[in-house]
Parts: sequence; structure tokens; C-alpha cells
Amino acid sequence: MELLFLGTSSMVPTKERNHSAILLTYGAENILLDCGEGTQRQLKMAGVASPKITKILISHWHGDHVLGLPGLLQTISASEYSKILEIYGPRGTKKHFEYIKKAFFFEEKFEVKVREIEEDGIFFENEDFCIEAKLLEHTVPCLGYRFSEKAKRKIKVDAAKKLGIPQGPLLGKLQEGKSVTWKGKKIMPEQVTYEKEGKSVAFILDTVMCESCVGLAKDADILVCEATYSEELEHKAEEYKHLTAKSAAMIANRANVKQLVITHFSPRYKNPEKLAEEARNYFDKTLCAKDFMRIRV
Amino acid sequence: MELLFLGTSSMVPTKERNHSAILLTYGAENILLDCGEGTQRQLKMAGVASPKITKILISHWHGDHVLGLPGLLQTISASEYSKILEIYGPRGTKKHFEYIKKAFFFEEKFEVKVREIEEDGIFFENEDFCIEAKLLEHTVPCLGYRFSEKAKRKIKVDAAKKLGIPQGPLLGKLQEGKSVTWKGKKIMPEQVTYEKEGKSVAFILDTVMCESCVGLAKDADILVCEATYSEELEHKAEEYKHLTAKSAAMIANRANVKQLVITHFSPRYKNPEKLAEEARNYFDKTLCAKDFMRIRV
Repeated sequence: MELLFLGTSSMVPTKERNHSAILLTYGAENILLDCGEGTQRQLKMAGVASPKITKILISHWHGDHVLGLPGLLQTISASEYSKILEIYGPRGTKKHFEYIKKAFFFEEKFEVKVREIEEDGIFFENEDFCIEAKLLEHTVPCLGYRFSEKAKRKIKVDAAKKLGIPQGPLLGKLQEGKSVTWKGKKIMPEQVTYEKEGKSVAFILDTVMCESCVGLAKDADILVCEATYSEELEHKAEEYKHLTAKSAAMIANRANVKQLVITHFSPRYKNPEKLAEEARNYFDKTLCAKDFMRIRV
Repeated sequence: MELLFLGTSSMVPTKERNHSAILLTYGAENILLDCGEGTQRQLKMAGVASPKITKILISHWHGDHVLGLPGLLQTISASEYSKILEIYGPRGTKKHFEYIKKAFFFEEKFEVKVREIEEDGIFFENEDFCIEAKLLEHTVPCLGYRFSEKAKRKIKVDAAKKLGIPQGPLLGKLQEGKSVTWKGKKIMPEQVTYEKEGKSVAFILDTVMCESCVGLAKDADILVCEATYSEELEHKAEEYKHLTAKSAAMIANRANVKQLVITHFSPRYKNPEKLAEEARNYFDKTLCAKDFMRIRV
């Protein structure tokens, strides 16, 4: 799994930071979290072809999180896109999407499935992972997301060799958690396999501190969290329903995450590293996102 | 007068070229011609504050020419904008604009005046300049624009000195084209003033070759013209209703302009200088636009 930060500014872009967008790559899945203006060009700069995107998760419909959507769809439409693009978002997403299509001349040459998430919980699940959403507290309906890889049974290669079990269907069955008989002996799956826990990443973009933040991030490997302001501008954070770097760290702390990555910085901060320093007073393992930064999970 | 190219790509941006947008600065006027996705950030990169913009002229409502509009308006809205922003565009502009406002949560804290241009001709005029539009031939309603500075009577400083006329109201009257009496002699305006012709710039963005192109550009100091394709892709140019570099040069030639600047290049051209070379076979004074290029007129 890899995260690629495509934009780390809040409402207004700066020379160094574009609007919000994060790409999560997991196998053949390329999931875009938010799509601020200019995202398709940021993807190009990062060497990622726009038609690789499989799902788009919209946190909310403030411009700085979605204004890149029509352009991205147009570029995908001009490619030979044969997948069904899935777009998920909060209440109102379908209506917003219809207006976008009316606002510009736009040829939709591929299938788009738009789904509004009405309730907290898992809204997508397959063999390998699930995605969960929780309603956060912002000035408009806004969702936080969590991507969770499922646990997988892996082969203990040395143990399998020691027992002389060859690669093939027997090992396959053991990996599925079933016992097999090998050279007259019953082999239990625990003898040659182990369960590898799945990784998880939570995304909290635009909210005030609330219990849903902590719930969504609980024990995550990575929490990507907005930190629009520094501590001394807490009154602004409250007014505009945003988090300070301190609040982001407090969420990370309470949720017991392994790593916090802060993003969505107010353009007033030339160097948002000072926000990461602030956060580290409350949660040591804090990283400051930068445009085009990649993180292996 | 100055032109600043903010984006020189056509439908899809490249690493080097953003979507269409050109800023024309004339005194306190900052007129934006088209506003492709990412224009507000391009302005920032060029050191121009978005709230300086006074007018926006939309050629047509294809995404690559307008998708930067909502973000730009949002950024202007967050400033202390006390002017009335004027937006001009072809038939349908008001409807598109209303849908944009519905598509995103958007606070309009300043006054915007949207006007659809229904007929060819001058649609804006003041003491210093006028702006004219002509309907071109594209797949959707699309306007070409021409900005024309008015002729101005200037003082022949040496002649005024020779006659001993002091700086002040007398010279002012002569500059207005009126005769005055100085030391008992009648002084005619022609004796101490001359008429300086105004400069003009025509903008032809997205069209096939048509007579309106030539009419709009007639004798202009600068013609900014799309040249999406090279000559060998003329069939594509016809299919998508665009110009080749050769056609742009032919328009410049027939319209007798002083300088041609080509822009709006297909992303297939890594170095669009080859398109300028092609154009120079038909019109010598051809320049190839680049993002952030400035031209003094």
C-alpha cells in the first residue's frame, strides 16, 4: 500500500502546495481521496496516469476538495476507460455531481457510479480490504474515511520446507485455514502458516475535534489528519470548524495510531514543519505532508 | 499593455503547460481571457494577486477554458474585493454560471455581473479602450475577442517648448484637440500635438478557419491564436474544429497583423516550437507562447 500526497494546502493554493488530494494505491486499486483543483496535473507531475483511478472518495463539497473533479473526469473520458468509476461522498453528492455535468460541456464516455453514504460504517468490502466512513463535524456534511486491509494467512516457508510439503494445492488449502494430510500425517494450518494483520489508514479531512475522529482512527497504522492552524489560532479553527496541529495530535494520541501525517495547511504557513513540531509535543510520531510525498504503508 | 500567458495547453495539461488562460494588463485593468483549471495557482506562481482581476472574458464553456473559474471566484471572495467583477461570455454563460454556483458550496461575498454577448461588435467601451467580440466556428458557441486601445493625442514636447507654452491647462486644451491663444497668437492643436494610434490585441481561441477570424484580427498589433495541431493533423483539426499552426499563420497573414503568438497546443507536442516553425513558413513574425511568458505591447 502506498500513499501519494497530491496537494497539502487548504482553501487557497500556494506556490508549493496545491489543493487537497491523496492517492491510495493498493494492488490494482487507485483510490483518490478528494480532488482539489489542479489534481489531474499533480497526478501528471507525479507520473500517475489519471485513468488508473478506480474510486474517488469525497470528504465534502467545499471547492478546495472537489474542484478538480470535472477536469479529471474529462481527462478520464478522453481515455479508453473501461472500468466503472466509483464515486462516494456525503449526502448531497448526487445533486452536486449533476450540477457539475450541467455547468460545463462534458462528454461522459464511461460509466460513473455515484453513491451517497448515509450511515456510519463499512460501505465497500471485497476479499482484500474494506472502506468505512464516519460523519465528522464541519460546516457542511463531511465524511472521514478508513481503508482497512484484511488479515491474510501467509506461509511459514521454512516450516513448510522442513515438513517437505511442496508448493501447490496442499499449501493453498493450508493457507485457506484448512488442515490437510501429507505422507499419512494430519497437518494443521497453524503449523505452516501464520496470520498477518492488515494495515489500515484513516483520513480525517476538515472537521472539529469529535468522537468520530477517534473512533475512525482507532489503532490505525497511519492517520492522515488535517491541521489547518497552529495552536494559537484555535479560535479560527473553531470558527471555520477545523483542527489545529495540537488537536490532530490529540486525536492520534487517543486513537493510539502508529503514525500521524498532518496536511491541509493554511496558506499563511510558509513552512508547515512548525505545525508538525507543535503536534510532536502531544504525539511524537508526527510527519508533515508535502506535495508529492509518498509513504509506504 | 502587457500579456501574461498563464496556460498554453489544450484539453489536457502537461508538466510544462497548464490549461488556457491569458492575462491582459492595461493600467488598472486586469482582464483574464479564459480561466482553465489551475489558473488561480498559475497567477500565484506569476506573482499576480487574484483579486486584481477586473474582467473575465470567456471564449466558450469547454472545461479546459473555464474549470478554473469557481476556484478563482472563491479565492476572490475570500479577499476584500470591493469592485464589481464583470464576466462576459457567449450565449449560455448565465446558465453555466448558475450551475457552477449550485455545484459547490460557494459564498459569493462580492458582486459579479455576468453578461452574455449576443451579437458581433463592441460590447464594452470607455475613454481608453474598447472590447469587441465575434462569434467563431467551434463545436459549441465560442467567441473571439479584440481589445483596442483608443488613439491618444500626445504633446510634441520640443514644439511646445519652442513656442514657450508652459505645462498646464493650455497644453491640456491642445491635447483635447482644441486651439488656444498664447501671447496673442492662435495655436492649433496640430502644431504641438500628434495622434498616437492605440494598440490592439486579438484573441482567437478554439475555432476552425472562418472569415470572422480575419475580421477580428485585422491590422492588430498582436494576434493570439490557437494552433492546436500541426499541418499533418489537419483532419483532426477539422474533426474537433481547431486550427493548425499553418491556419493560424494564414489568418495572421490575411489580417495583416504585426505579430502572431500561437498557443493552445495539443499535449502530444513536447516542444511546440516546431508548430511555430511551421507557422513561420506562412507568416514570418510568429512567436510560440510558453506558460508565464510576458509580452509588452
